[in-house]
Amino acid sequence: MSEYAGQDQGGASVGLVAPKSYTFAEPPDPLHLESGASLGPITLAYETCGTLDADKSNAILILHALSGDAHVAGYHRQEETKPGWWEYMVGPGKGIDTNRYFVICSNILGSCMGTTGPGSINPQTNRPYGLDFPVVTIGDMVEAQRALIDHLGIARLLAVIGGSIGGMQVLEWAVRFPERVRAAIPLATTMRHSALAIAFNEIARQAIMADPNWREGHYHGNTIPATGLAVARMIGHVTYLSDQAMRRKFGRRLQDKEDFSFDFDAEFQVESYLRHQGSKFVERFDANSFLYITKAADYFDLEHRGGSASAVETFRRAQAKFLVVSFTSDWLYPTYQSREIVRALKKNGLDVSFCEIAADCGHDAFLIPNARLTSLISSFLDRVTHETGH
Amino acid sequence: MSEYAGQDQGGASVGLVAPKSYTFAEPPDPLHLESGASLGPITLAYETCGTLDADKSNAILILHALSGDAHVAGYHRQEETKPGWWEYMVGPGKGIDTNRYFVICSNILGSCMGTTGPGSINPQTNRPYGLDFPVVTIGDMVEAQRALIDHLGIARLLAVIGGSIGGMQVLEWAVRFPERVRAAIPLATTMRHSALAIAFNEIARQAIMADPNWREGHYHGNTIPATGLAVARMIGHVTYLSDQAMRRKFGRRLQDKEDFSFDFDAEFQVESYLRHQGSKFVERFDANSFLYITKAADYFDLEHRGGSASAVETFRRAQAKFLVVSFTSDWLYPTYQSREIVRALKKNGLDVSFCEIAADCGHDAFLIPNARLTSLISSFLDRVTHETGH
Repeated sequence: MSEYAGQDQGGASVGLVAPKSYTFAEPPDPLHLESGASLGPITLAYETCGTLDADKSNAILILHALSGDAHVAGYHRQEETKPGWWEYMVGPGKGIDTNRYFVICSNILGSCMGTTGPGSINPQTNRPYGLDFPVVTIGDMVEAQRALIDHLGIARLLAVIGGSIGGMQVLEWAVRFPERVRAAIPLATTMRHSALAIAFNEIARQAIMADPNWREGHYHGNTIPATGLAVARMIGHVTYLSDQAMRRKFGRRLQDKEDFSFDFDAEFQVESYLRHQGSKFVERFDANSFLYITKAADYFDLEHRGGSASAVETFRRAQAKFLVVSFTSDWLYPTYQSREIVRALKKNGLDVSFCEIAADCGHDAFLIPNARLTSLISSFLDRVTHETGH
Repeated sequence: MSEYAGQDQGGASVGLVAPKSYTFAEPPDPLHLESGASLGPITLAYETCGTLDADKSNAILILHALSGDAHVAGYHRQEETKPGWWEYMVGPGKGIDTNRYFVICSNILGSCMGTTGPGSINPQTNRPYGLDFPVVTIGDMVEAQRALIDHLGIARLLAVIGGSIGGMQVLEWAVRFPERVRAAIPLATTMRHSALAIAFNEIARQAIMADPNWREGHYHGNTIPATGLAVARMIGHVTYLSDQAMRRKFGRRLQDKEDFSFDFDAEFQVESYLRHQGSKFVERFDANSFLYITKAADYFDLEHRGGSASAVETFRRAQAKFLVVSFTSDWLYPTYQSREIVRALKKNGLDVSFCEIAADCGHDAFLIPNARLTSLISSFLDRVTHETGH
């Protein structure tokens, strides 16, 4: 999620959407997590746009990335100026056309945007969980989403779509609940978090945990670990960009200066930009949620999912039609990692489309208005709708 | 500088070398810095290997990178097991053959390995400078090295050689003192620090300055900002590696574990490795020096050096023969940045050799034993020696 989030390309908006929530896994029936721990009750924040048709066959579940939320498109209030994070893609007549499809987006388990996470109240103590919150996985996030989809009475999703960590959830849906997914669209993602990606996540976590205000995760009611979280965000943010994009966007330009100041204030535009990104993030995101969600990404490995010997074996259960998309300048989840997904799917004889989109803006490309991506998604959804006889 | 530093490929060592130092710029004649500030006295730590010939024409100045030091090869004490940082390249019969050449290496201005830097005593206050140390540039580092070369009575260097920030110093030498450099070998470097490189440096600096023990740079006599410096080092360290190298070296292997521990301890090998690199670095390096040296790198821009309109104009003064080397997997200073140097040199009709070496170990490649690099440097030095009639 970046400064591009919510950027609109014009076109109609879904307009006002209402934040909703669904609570489940109430004791004595908690959700059993992959770690062996249990968690409950769980509240999922979610939003919907469009209309679910009579046979409930037009539902698309959108899965967000690290710092996203349920607010995928439209506005919560009339006077609001910033729409949901994928406004350019989701709306009437857009790539994911809300005149045709019923769009659902829920905030992921472990986050801090309305869904249960480490900042939520632990019913055992009546205080925020902090680090007592159990470590959750991409699989656990998807289990929770499945409970919501059950609650909405939807037997089979037309599609699951998401980028980055959202793309991991797409892949997990396709193998965990194969009979409930007609189409899967993983964007700018991987089936196996690489050492490089783990390294950046770990350094960001170290930055948070090094902040004395973090207090082993129990900072609630005290000063938050703002400087640590800001550094963590800056690290993440650079990995979402690219050398080319940064040269174009910032180059070596100075911020409000003619010449070097020879001190340690921010003087290059890229420095001011990063500091700004860091401090903006701290206002809206919880440091512990950052730890939990990055850890879930690091654990993600479809090659060895549930004792599987290979990704080919893991995808054996999948039934969906796939559209896999990568971006040329994404060095966090480079194209070769998408090709690995495609190979494993094809070896199972699945219906797979793959496209590497030329884009110089790095990993964030899936969030930036892109006519090619819009038309790919739109025509793929169209094909799937027709081929499955809707 | 990485864990590869000092790795030996066998072959003879220069054996015992003595740490030396040279003090100059004593008041009332301080060094005038590019910032407009002055600094003095200045002590440079340096070491030499080999023998300076009678006409003083076989001297090679080696310029180290961010965290390096004057100890380029050999051992300080008989019982020492870890040789200097470029042991594989420098020694009798090696790429830089100390049977033929007189090798000099000095610790850069602003560092903490014996040369004057922010941790040195400020003669005005009799306390460590801390942030009262003036910001220095690559040009200032080279000015200080020139004073040492004068002191050694060497009118003209056979070669200046260095990688990364050392490579920036090589380029600076070639344009600042053109008549004093016969050959210049910049490795894995750039003539203009990119927005991406500045971004990583800035985040690392933010990590240090976020550490409350940093105390605005005046931590001397108190606890050092160890956690901030460790995070800074980890950030730097990842940028010196590559996706491929990290996959090969760590993959997703766990450290001393069979399965996930579902907590925030280091469990992937890459996590343990980074934590280890961070804590090892803290024992030997000064946090403020990290700030100053990265800032010098960020300021480096030959395209606009001294009011120059282009790199072609900057290099107009250069006279040296050049060997420019880049490495395929170096994403911090990618090959296109070396090609920019080569183009600017060629437009000035200079004698330039360029080689992109296939290596999957990232920016650190220049520090890792590499037969191709060794033979390139060795034959280039041989040619320069003969062509200039030595």
